[in-house]
Amino acid sequence: MVYIGIDLGGTKIAAGITNAQGEILAQASTATIAERPYKEVVRDMASCALRALEKSGHTIDAVETIGIGIPGIAENKAGTVIFCTNLGWSNVPLRDELQKYINKPVFIDNDATVAGLAESRAGVSRGAASSVFLTLGTGVGGGIILNGKPWTGAHGVASELGHLTLELEGIPCTCGKDGCLERYCSATALIRMGREAARLHPDSLILARAGSEDKIDGKLIIDCAREGDPYAMKVFDRYTRYLAIAINTIVSFIDPEMIVLGGGISMAGQFLLDAVREKIPNYLMFKAMPFGRVELAVLGNGAGIIGAAMLGMVLKEGESL
Amino acid sequence: MVYIGIDLGGTKIAAGITNAQGEILAQASTATIAERPYKEVVRDMASCALRALEKSGHTIDAVETIGIGIPGIAENKAGTVIFCTNLGWSNVPLRDELQKYINKPVFIDNDATVAGLAESRAGVSRGAASSVFLTLGTGVGGGIILNGKPWTGAHGVASELGHLTLELEGIPCTCGKDGCLERYCSATALIRMGREAARLHPDSLILARAGSEDKIDGKLIIDCAREGDPYAMKVFDRYTRYLAIAINTIVSFIDPEMIVLGGGISMAGQFLLDAVREKIPNYLMFKAMPFGRVELAVLGNGAGIIGAAMLGMVLKEGESL
Repeated sequence: MVYIGIDLGGTKIAAGITNAQGEILAQASTATIAERPYKEVVRDMASCALRALEKSGHTIDAVETIGIGIPGIAENKAGTVIFCTNLGWSNVPLRDELQKYINKPVFIDNDATVAGLAESRAGVSRGAASSVFLTLGTGVGGGIILNGKPWTGAHGVASELGHLTLELEGIPCTCGKDGCLERYCSATALIRMGREAARLHPDSLILARAGSEDKIDGKLIIDCAREGDPYAMKVFDRYTRYLAIAINTIVSFIDPEMIVLGGGISMAGQFLLDAVREKIPNYLMFKAMPFGRVELAVLGNGAGIIGAAMLGMVLKEGESL
Repeated sequence: MVYIGIDLGGTKIAAGITNAQGEILAQASTATIAERPYKEVVRDMASCALRALEKSGHTIDAVETIGIGIPGIAENKAGTVIFCTNLGWSNVPLRDELQKYINKPVFIDNDATVAGLAESRAGVSRGAASSVFLTLGTGVGGGIILNGKPWTGAHGVASELGHLTLELEGIPCTCGKDGCLERYCSATALIRMGREAARLHPDSLILARAGSEDKIDGKLIIDCAREGDPYAMKVFDRYTRYLAIAINTIVSFIDPEMIVLGGGISMAGQFLLDAVREKIPNYLMFKAMPFGRVELAVLGNGAGIIGAAMLGMVLKEGESL
């Protein structure tokens, strides 16, 4: 049997066929063109999936389930997308619409949850019974995997780890609250801190490299820190301290077997991992107790397709965990 | 079949016999005398349990399991108490020691987890598949129940909700970290804020009622707020705002079906519940989505015995959730 996984993004639809181990056998993609009516987007999701299926050499009879990762909130019982800001979708009956083209069981979940599931089935956290995935990008997304299955909560709004309060009356967040975790741990936060440092210290390597303040990005700041620029190092130190505190909040809450870091910032690799791992013990509640291993995600862009395909597989086994 | 539940506290050992519905059929208690060698404490735990069993009219053959709630951290696979500050215990082989007296399966967990399980089996959250329990006392304890079973994490240190970071570089906590949730949401925090208010406003009802600053306790502050004293109202407003933020962090993380408030502060009843419920929507990430109902615990002191008894029952059904 094979599994269809669809990664629905704001700019691209990627569909793939995987086996039960989460290996991608074939894939296809097309532009989302988000401003179209949702029915056209769904039609293209189906045709992408069918193209990938054809490439894989399998027929529709071999397909067990369809899983979809969306940049938003889904209701799995009804199979609807509750909302998806990037696509301007609200209450879209995605399952029903897709089943007009491919009549197989459809399962939908948030893209960060799906990426976390991919790592836990076919990536760095494979074999871990519980893991928490953090995407460190423009925002911070989260995926919680318990006993090998995604935990999305009683109302589908769990694992919004970017919006845990990390600072009472802290930096205002795009979500309307203040002091959310993603204001301190996202790439956006790192860039904000880097730009502040460049403004205060025009002699920094950060500004010399970037040329102008608006050209400062996350990678540049991390590169400057790696090269020993004291201002960049201070920013990186502050950023990784916030991340260590966030990870400790995850440990105190769920105590997972593993914590997996993904998203753009995780491209900093071992340099990031070393800095974060070094700081975590400072914030542990029980210094003498073991805690979840912190690792970098390994599946990259493939995580969207793999996790979506695995979503169908694990949810078909039984409703939630 | 019946279940033995033992609530091991720093000052009192309470043991009870329950049926499968979590109804207490008989109970017995004795002083802990924590400074004794642990073997003597365990011997008294067993004799308390056997006395309760005799009172219940059942024989040892009817006993299915023994569950124990401890004010500390347990390792359920080995059946050991890893540590228990109040009792001065560390790495105590509680299961082995207790089975010298009563040879039945023994399950051990943290007291807040056990109280949360009690509410979810026989109390206010009965019927909810997922719930999070918060004890608002000297500190803040937490219990997480997912699919009807306690979630204690990969290393037994989950649900330490009092030690989530709520304020970066915030008020120093007894655990060694700064800005922990319990520094803002415990009875201790409410008292600290009340005493500050009394110091700044000697004309407050708080000081008039208490006589002196050191006599100010949580109940007095809440009573003054209830009676309309503007300073007490301001303190209560701030306290319930922190609690609403903490509850929203729980919603964003786990999105449980219910959130249950227990511990001393929950004795403020509907007055507390109304204030907290009113504030929660201000901090919701998804304003249009439903979220877990917030309720008060109903089992009071019985929760320790009931939850411990239910712990044996649910864990015997299968390892964790």
